[in-house]
Amino acid sequence: MIEKSHIDHLVSLLGPECATTDQDRIAPLLREWRDKYFGHTQLLLTPNSAEQLSDALRYCNAHGVAVVPQGGNTGLVGAGLPGLANRDEVLISTQRMNKVLDVCPNDYSITVEAGVTIKEIQQSAETADRLFPLSLASEGSCTAGGTIATNAGGVHVIRYGSMQALTMGVEAVLADGTIYSDLSPLRKDNTGYKLSSLFAGSEGTLGIITKATLKLYPPERHRITTWIAIDDINSALNILEKLRDVTADRVSVFEIMPHSGLELVLRHIPSTLPPFPGKEFPWYILAEIGSSIHDPVLEETVEDCLSNMISNNQIADGIIAQSEQQRLELWKLRESLSEAQKHEGGSIKHDISVPVSQVPEFVKTVAPEIEQRWTGSRVIPFGHLGDGNLHFNVMQPSTMDKQAFLANWEEMNRFVHDRVTDFSGSISAEHGIGSMKAQELKRLKPASSLHAMQMIKKALDPNNILNPGALFTRD
Amino acid sequence: MIEKSHIDHLVSLLGPECATTDQDRIAPLLREWRDKYFGHTQLLLTPNSAEQLSDALRYCNAHGVAVVPQGGNTGLVGAGLPGLANRDEVLISTQRMNKVLDVCPNDYSITVEAGVTIKEIQQSAETADRLFPLSLASEGSCTAGGTIATNAGGVHVIRYGSMQALTMGVEAVLADGTIYSDLSPLRKDNTGYKLSSLFAGSEGTLGIITKATLKLYPPERHRITTWIAIDDINSALNILEKLRDVTADRVSVFEIMPHSGLELVLRHIPSTLPPFPGKEFPWYILAEIGSSIHDPVLEETVEDCLSNMISNNQIADGIIAQSEQQRLELWKLRESLSEAQKHEGGSIKHDISVPVSQVPEFVKTVAPEIEQRWTGSRVIPFGHLGDGNLHFNVMQPSTMDKQAFLANWEEMNRFVHDRVTDFSGSISAEHGIGSMKAQELKRLKPASSLHAMQMIKKALDPNNILNPGALFTRD
Repeated sequence: MIEKSHIDHLVSLLGPECATTDQDRIAPLLREWRDKYFGHTQLLLTPNSAEQLSDALRYCNAHGVAVVPQGGNTGLVGAGLPGLANRDEVLISTQRMNKVLDVCPNDYSITVEAGVTIKEIQQSAETADRLFPLSLASEGSCTAGGTIATNAGGVHVIRYGSMQALTMGVEAVLADGTIYSDLSPLRKDNTGYKLSSLFAGSEGTLGIITKATLKLYPPERHRITTWIAIDDINSALNILEKLRDVTADRVSVFEIMPHSGLELVLRHIPSTLPPFPGKEFPWYILAEIGSSIHDPVLEETVEDCLSNMISNNQIADGIIAQSEQQRLELWKLRESLSEAQKHEGGSIKHDISVPVSQVPEFVKTVAPEIEQRWTGSRVIPFGHLGDGNLHFNVMQPSTMDKQAFLANWEEMNRFVHDRVTDFSGSISAEHGIGSMKAQELKRLKPASSLHAMQMIKKALDPNNILNPGALFTRD
Repeated sequence: MIEKSHIDHLVSLLGPECATTDQDRIAPLLREWRDKYFGHTQLLLTPNSAEQLSDALRYCNAHGVAVVPQGGNTGLVGAGLPGLANRDEVLISTQRMNKVLDVCPNDYSITVEAGVTIKEIQQSAETADRLFPLSLASEGSCTAGGTIATNAGGVHVIRYGSMQALTMGVEAVLADGTIYSDLSPLRKDNTGYKLSSLFAGSEGTLGIITKATLKLYPPERHRITTWIAIDDINSALNILEKLRDVTADRVSVFEIMPHSGLELVLRHIPSTLPPFPGKEFPWYILAEIGSSIHDPVLEETVEDCLSNMISNNQIADGIIAQSEQQRLELWKLRESLSEAQKHEGGSIKHDISVPVSQVPEFVKTVAPEIEQRWTGSRVIPFGHLGDGNLHFNVMQPSTMDKQAFLANWEEMNRFVHDRVTDFSGSISAEHGIGSMKAQELKRLKPASSLHAMQMIKKALDPNNILNPGALFTRD
């Protein structure tokens, strides 16, 4: 329990509008959308400025009151909910800091408060004839602060990078109440440590982001979307290389899914159509090339490139979307896969990456190992091949009880993470660590890396009040 | 003086090949190429591995022996020389760690030891049909480790980013001897703090980089190089926007120089030719568009774009290089400017940045202020306009004594840095802080930023043995 005196003080500090103990107001923020985690807290703070948050954190730091920051509550690793594992933490939501502060077309930058959603950022950029490239399933809800803190990825990382790469500067409140700011659209600034890069991916354990300046790009006014069938996943690497090359590095999307995944989508998701009716291929690639100029030559170039690779047997078949309607149909096949899987029962998920060059070997080696060890399970590896990032999901045997299969979660995670480590990969490519993978991080991250991380954590948050359940284990 | 017992121990630890007190061997590394700084030390270490360096640093840390790491000794801010300001420091050169370890075309990555030069990295990339885009004047000498530690920039930052953006991971030895490594070509990895991003720009104050994995790109096989004359520097922003737009964001270079700069080059540098014979314009832009594919349409597009802007009076005149020979001639005009300035006597230099959108206003406001305050001085602002990065050099009055003018260095620096701060800019865009600007950093960086930086420095280097003269002042 958080001491009543602390609660009273924090409520008086922020005022009843920005601090509440009313469980009816708090409850919606404690619910994780997949019902995987259930948070609890006695106190919700919704500061409307860095200054207010600074007052709150200074008090919390002095009195050892732990806090958990939350953006859009769309995280997947239990990093944004208070009270997990019987800890007592104040929930701090950035929901009231929700203003777009500045869009500067000449600086190709936008400055926002932490609680602005990615969708709103995309739209503000569009109004200024600019592109904010981050794009992910939760973009309607997830926020600037939350996506920076988790270094979110998505489908455009191959070209534009993750949230860290898109962040030019932040304002953040440190544990001791210090308001740090390198908020600015400067493209070059070598005046000391790049703390905004450190906050990116720190999951609220080093500071709470209150504002950010983000990079914008020229819009993609012309998009060429192609669905490619291949017999051997090895070919994907050649296709990626050729496409980057012939399009002058304008490949914005390069996603992969196996036939088993497509089958699930076609079976379970209404109004989906097979891209190659009557034909089956082991693997499919969804690639998109984006250009700020309408470029008919580019379209021909992509067509020629694919034709050549069909002649060389590197590509089995391929189509290029001939209309926005057809483009959206192809996208639907890729984007519905997670949803389609749910209809087939439970699946054990892994958000992993390996070097791009190692993806084919990883899939060919590890998928059979799993299917052999967990008889009847089916591996559906899909995702952002261009970044080496696979959502390596393992579906339950059709005859098995869902809960019985899901009971293998941790054991299978450990198996997959061990193999990922063998391939010099990452046990969390884009979702982060949170509380979910903290034990696995401790088990697999080199001791020297954990040591360095802990030194920084202790320096910036010596009383361990900032999201103490995320990234690190308690022992 | 470094105690003899420490010197003896370190020599015995690394062996005579990798540790020397021979001043003849040490002397070449103490000479700064502009003769601006003069270093001294009793001991030079040239470890050949992270392990050897780890042994040395563990000893130094335990005994409070300070060290200064050095790459190619091309730095401009006195960050790589030991013994400045009567400190006693061991010099640690990465010269013996000079191997290219791996080039992986499919991962668009290269892994090198810290002492490999940027030129060698560019060449290794080229052999694998890839581009390593960092390009700067000292590329033949400066090294991977040094350029990461200074977060070097150069002419291609507008498209490919600074060294931080090009660094996928590093191996580095911390003060306590810990060998930290996130060396890998992973494109997505959200498993904790991104320490490689923190090492970038840390000037050897947090750890000594021993290896790095760097990003590669498809090569620029087709380059369109244009020299544009403008009457008003404001137009530069429109030109940059239009060129980014019509070339699908393939602007790799966007440099500016004033007529006074061109005049100096034509006067002092042999075999340079005026791009517009018989004509004078206030400002010139050198822009280059790079593409992995030969694209005749792109060339037409650029031509049309420039023609339209001439019709609209945004551009006064413009040429596109018609041969590699002509391209190199245009580049020579830009690249010779620093050299040309030397022939006119002393100049007081500033490596500054402001938001790109603020460059015209900054130049129009601050240049006259300086010329008024220091009568007869001439401001020659030139450089990387696309990044908001100006080398804001002020030349001496032609009638004045050189040393008398240079005596204004610090006062003028302070004046310019104050104005840069008014424009939300940076007092060091790409050269870093070193010992040269440590006082200015302390004066102008927000106290909260310095506080956060110091917390991190103290955490990773509690005994302040790593490059103690750089970034921070001693008091």
